[in-house]
Amino acid sequence: MTVRVIPLGGIGEIGKNMTVVESEDGIVVIDAGIAFPRDEMLGVDLVLPDFSYLREHAARIRAVILTHGHEDHVGGLPYLIREVGVPEVWATRLTLGLVKAKLDEHGLNRAAELREIVPERGVIPLGPFRAEFIRVTHSIPDAVAVVLHTDDGTIVHSGDIKIDHTPVDGRRTDLARFAAVGDRGVALLLGDSTNAERAGWTPSEAVVTRSLERVIRDAPGRVIVTSFASHIHRLQGVIDAAAACDRFVCVVGRSMTRNLNIARNLGYASVPDGILRKPAEIAELEPERVVILCTGSQGEPLSALTRIAYNDHPSVSVMAGDTVIISAKPVPGNELAVHDTMNQLWRVGARVLHQDVAPVHVSGHGSADELKTVLALVRPTYVMPVHGELRHLVAHGALAEEMGVLAANVLIVENGACLELTDGVVQRGANVTAGVVFVDGLGIGDIADVVLRDRRQLSADGVLIVVCQLHDDAAEMREPEVIARGFAPEGAGDELLAEVQLIATRTLADVAERETKIIQAHLHDAIAELVYKRARKRPLILPVVVDV
Amino acid sequence: MTVRVIPLGGIGEIGKNMTVVESEDGIVVIDAGIAFPRDEMLGVDLVLPDFSYLREHAARIRAVILTHGHEDHVGGLPYLIREVGVPEVWATRLTLGLVKAKLDEHGLNRAAELREIVPERGVIPLGPFRAEFIRVTHSIPDAVAVVLHTDDGTIVHSGDIKIDHTPVDGRRTDLARFAAVGDRGVALLLGDSTNAERAGWTPSEAVVTRSLERVIRDAPGRVIVTSFASHIHRLQGVIDAAAACDRFVCVVGRSMTRNLNIARNLGYASVPDGILRKPAEIAELEPERVVILCTGSQGEPLSALTRIAYNDHPSVSVMAGDTVIISAKPVPGNELAVHDTMNQLWRVGARVLHQDVAPVHVSGHGSADELKTVLALVRPTYVMPVHGELRHLVAHGALAEEMGVLAANVLIVENGACLELTDGVVQRGANVTAGVVFVDGLGIGDIADVVLRDRRQLSADGVLIVVCQLHDDAAEMREPEVIARGFAPEGAGDELLAEVQLIATRTLADVAERETKIIQAHLHDAIAELVYKRARKRPLILPVVVDV
Repeated sequence: MTVRVIPLGGIGEIGKNMTVVESEDGIVVIDAGIAFPRDEMLGVDLVLPDFSYLREHAARIRAVILTHGHEDHVGGLPYLIREVGVPEVWATRLTLGLVKAKLDEHGLNRAAELREIVPERGVIPLGPFRAEFIRVTHSIPDAVAVVLHTDDGTIVHSGDIKIDHTPVDGRRTDLARFAAVGDRGVALLLGDSTNAERAGWTPSEAVVTRSLERVIRDAPGRVIVTSFASHIHRLQGVIDAAAACDRFVCVVGRSMTRNLNIARNLGYASVPDGILRKPAEIAELEPERVVILCTGSQGEPLSALTRIAYNDHPSVSVMAGDTVIISAKPVPGNELAVHDTMNQLWRVGARVLHQDVAPVHVSGHGSADELKTVLALVRPTYVMPVHGELRHLVAHGALAEEMGVLAANVLIVENGACLELTDGVVQRGANVTAGVVFVDGLGIGDIADVVLRDRRQLSADGVLIVVCQLHDDAAEMREPEVIARGFAPEGAGDELLAEVQLIATRTLADVAERETKIIQAHLHDAIAELVYKRARKRPLILPVVVDV
Repeated sequence: MTVRVIPLGGIGEIGKNMTVVESEDGIVVIDAGIAFPRDEMLGVDLVLPDFSYLREHAARIRAVILTHGHEDHVGGLPYLIREVGVPEVWATRLTLGLVKAKLDEHGLNRAAELREIVPERGVIPLGPFRAEFIRVTHSIPDAVAVVLHTDDGTIVHSGDIKIDHTPVDGRRTDLARFAAVGDRGVALLLGDSTNAERAGWTPSEAVVTRSLERVIRDAPGRVIVTSFASHIHRLQGVIDAAAACDRFVCVVGRSMTRNLNIARNLGYASVPDGILRKPAEIAELEPERVVILCTGSQGEPLSALTRIAYNDHPSVSVMAGDTVIISAKPVPGNELAVHDTMNQLWRVGARVLHQDVAPVHVSGHGSADELKTVLALVRPTYVMPVHGELRHLVAHGALAEEMGVLAANVLIVENGACLELTDGVVQRGANVTAGVVFVDGLGIGDIADVVLRDRRQLSADGVLIVVCQLHDDAAEMREPEVIARGFAPEGAGDELLAEVQLIATRTLADVAERETKIIQAHLHDAIAELVYKRARKRPLILPVVVDV
C-alpha cells in the first residue's frame, strides 16, 4: 500500500494552509485555510487553495482535521464544504466553537458533522488511519499537532507550534508525547517553518503578560490594547492585569467580542465578575480605571482602533493621556497602515507602545532552537518543511540536516507536490493541480490574468473612452466624445483631451474600412501613441464606435 | 529682526526633506528632497513638497544647501529649479557630483550656480547668514550638518546623522566641532529623528565590512551583493573584500555604475587596477573568482537583482551555488517585493543572506544614545525634531527632555509650521502652505482627489461602460452595448452583463426625459444597484448616451 501526502497550500507562502493525506481507503485533509490578497491582487477579497484535486476525489474525503482556529487554517472550510463537501470536521473544543460561528454565518451549520479532538484520549481511528493529537502552544489556545499512524509509517504534522513552557493556561506543548511518538519511529515530519530563520527560542507569553501588567499599572490614564481578536491568552492577560490594577475592561470590535464570548462559554477565558463595561459606559468612568481591548492591530481601515484613532467610532474616542499598546506585529504588507494608525494616535495626544520599543508582543511560532527540539524528539526519517515562504522552508531544512536528517530526506517541495510513503520510504509522485482561487465579492473562481492586468492599468493611469458615431452621410458626422476617468494629465489636461478628439476625428476620416473592429484598432493605436508621447501615460483606451 | 524656520517637508513623514530658513535679507533652503509614492497614490511616480511658499517668495531665495546626496534630500532640486528658480546650490564635492549628473539628465546643467562646501574652511557668508558645516557620517559619503549663525541666535541642522567612529573613509562625525558650536551657544537644533525609537547606538559600517569579507571568503561560488546605489562605502567595502579574496568585481545596474564612476572620479572610491569586469565577461570566469555588485535591494521590478533572479537580465543570471547578500533593509512598504526576490533566488538554487540572519547591513541613522550625544554637545535651548513620522519626532523630543531641554522648548510641529527666532527666543508664527505635489508621467501638479478615488475604484472593481443610442424613432432603437474591463464576476459574468443590458434597455424605455445627463443618472443608479446586489461589486459605471 502507499500513503500519499499532498500539500495544497502553505508551501512557499504564508497562508492558506492545507495538506491532503490519503490512502486507497480515503482522504484526510489537515487544515483548510485562506490567505489574504496581496496588493497586486486588485479587488480580491480572499484567496483560497485550488480545490480541484479534492473536487475530483470528493467521494473519498473522510474528514478534515483543523489544528487550530486561525483563519489561515480554518478560513477556507465554509468554501470547501460548499464547493466539495466534507462529511466530518475534527478539531479541539475551542477550534470547533470558532468554526461553528463561522459556519453559522455561511448558513452551513448542518453541512458537516463536527467531532471533538481530545488529545488525552490517545490513538483513535480517523478515516483510513489511526490518529492521535498532541497539545502544542501557539498564539491561540487549544492548538494541536497531528499524528497519523499508517501501515506504511507514522506521519507527524506539527501544526503551528511554539514551545512555551509558561503558557497562560498552563497547557504546555506536550514534549514527552512527541518523544513517545518518536520512540515508536516516525517516517515523515511536516513542520511549521515560519520562524526557522530566527535564532534561539521565542520568548514565552508570560513575558508579555508581565510587561502588560507593568504598563497598565503605571499608566496615568486609560489604556487601550489592540491585538489579534483570536489571541485569547493575550486578551486574558490584559483582563487579568486590569483586574490586578483595579480597572474595568471594555471590549470593542465585533470579532474580538465574539471570540471572547465563545472562549468564555467553552471555559477558555475567565472574566472576573463586574469587570466588563460597555463602550457607551466608558465616558462615565475615571480614565485611570479603564482598559479598552480592541481590534485593529493590523491598521485595518474599518477596525475599532483605526476608527477610534480617527475619531470615527460611535462610542469610543482617544484622549490625551491615553496609553495605546499595539500588542501584535504587522503582517508583512501592513506596516504602513499600522504606522499610520500609530502616528494618528500620537497626533491626538496618546502615547503608543509597540513591540520595537517595549516587550508587548511575542510570536506564536517557535524559533530555530524550538524547531530543533521538536526534531530531536520526533527523530523523523524524512522532513517536509511547511508553513512558510521558500526561504523559511530552506532554513528549516538546514536545521533538520543539523539534527541528523539526511540531506536527501529533506523535502523542499511546492504546493501540489505528491509524496508517496511506501513501507517507510518516501518517493516523489506526479504533481497534482494546485494554485490559487480568488474570492471577489460574492464570486468564487479564477479571476483571469487579463482582468488583473486591466485593473493594474486602470489603477495606474485610468481610462480614456472615445465615443465615435459613424454615419453613412458624412455631413451628419459628429465630433467624437472623449471621456477620461482616473486619468490626470493636469494643467495641460484639457488640451490633451482636445488633441485626442482631433486625432480621433482624423483617424475616422482616414480609415476607409467600415468594419468596427478595425476602426477601433486604428483609434486605439493612434490615441495610445499620442497620449504616451505627450504625457508618458498608458491609460486603458476604449474606443466605442456607434454605427448609426 | 527675526529669523523664521519653516519646514516644508520631512516632518511627520519619511522623505521629501526641505526646510526654509529666512530673514528679511533673504531665504536659504536646506535640502530639496522627494518622497516615493505610497500604494494608495495610484499611478503617481514621485512626490514633491508643495513649493507654493517658495514660489511666492522666489525673488528672495539666495541659496539651496544640500546636506548629502540621497534622493529624499536632493531629488526635488531639478523641479525646484525649473518651477521656482534657485541662484546657488551649496553642497560638498560628492553631493555636487551626484547633483550635476541629475541636473544634466533634466537639461538643467547651467540653471544654477553650484558651489562647493568644504567644512574645513570654517564660517563663510551664505545668503543672509554666516554658515559653517560639520562633517557627519551617514550611509553616503560627504554628508554634513549645517550651522547657520544669525543675529538672533545660532541654528544647527543635523542633516541625516550617525556617529560612526570607524567609518570606511576615516572621516568621522566631527563631534569636537559640534561641541565648539555648542560652547558658543545654540538657540535651535533641528535633529534627525529616524531612529529615535531605537535604544543604544547604531553599529559601525566596519561591522558590515568585516562580515561581508568573511562571507565572500567562505562562499563556494559567486557572490552577488545588492545595496543602495548611493551607498559608496558599502560598495567600497565589497570591492575591498573582493580584492582581499582575489575575486573580480562586476557592477550591474545603471545607477550603481554611474554613482561609482562619479565617486571614483572625485576620489571617494578607489578600485584596484584590473579588478573590474564587464557583465558580458562574467561567464568566462570561475565562479569562486566573481563578486557581482548590483542594484535591486528594494525588490524594484526593473532593477538588476530582480531581473537576474527571474532570469530576465541580458548578461547575468543566477546559478546554483551562488551566494546572494541583501545588504540593505526594505523600506516600509517594500517588504513583500524584497521577500519575493529572496524566495525566487532560493528557488533557482542560490543561498540568500539578509540582515535578519547575518550582520550584512547597518542603518545610516543614529540611535537614541547617538542623538543624546549630539544633544549633549550642542546643548540647544530649543529642539525641533525633523526627519521622521510623528512617533519618531515624539521619541526624539523625549530624548531631548531627558537631556535637559525644557518640555516647552521641544517643538513637535508639522510641515508648514513657522518658528520665529527673535533674540534667542522661539515663538510660533502663522503656518504657511505646505503639502504634497505629485509627479505623474510628465505632469507635475495636484492630482485631484477625485482622480485618485476613481483609480481606487477602477483598481478594485474595474469599469462597466454602457453605450445607449437615442433615436427619435422608437423603431430604430438598438440594444445598449455593455463593455466590461477589469470587472470579473466570473461564471455568472455573462449572465450579469446580459442583465445589465436588460436593465439599461428598460431604464431607457422608462425615462420620459430626453436630457442626456438625466438619462445617464438613471442608468448609473439602476446598474449600480443591480451589480452590487448580484455581485457585491462597485465598478465605475459610465453610461454613454448617443443622441442620434
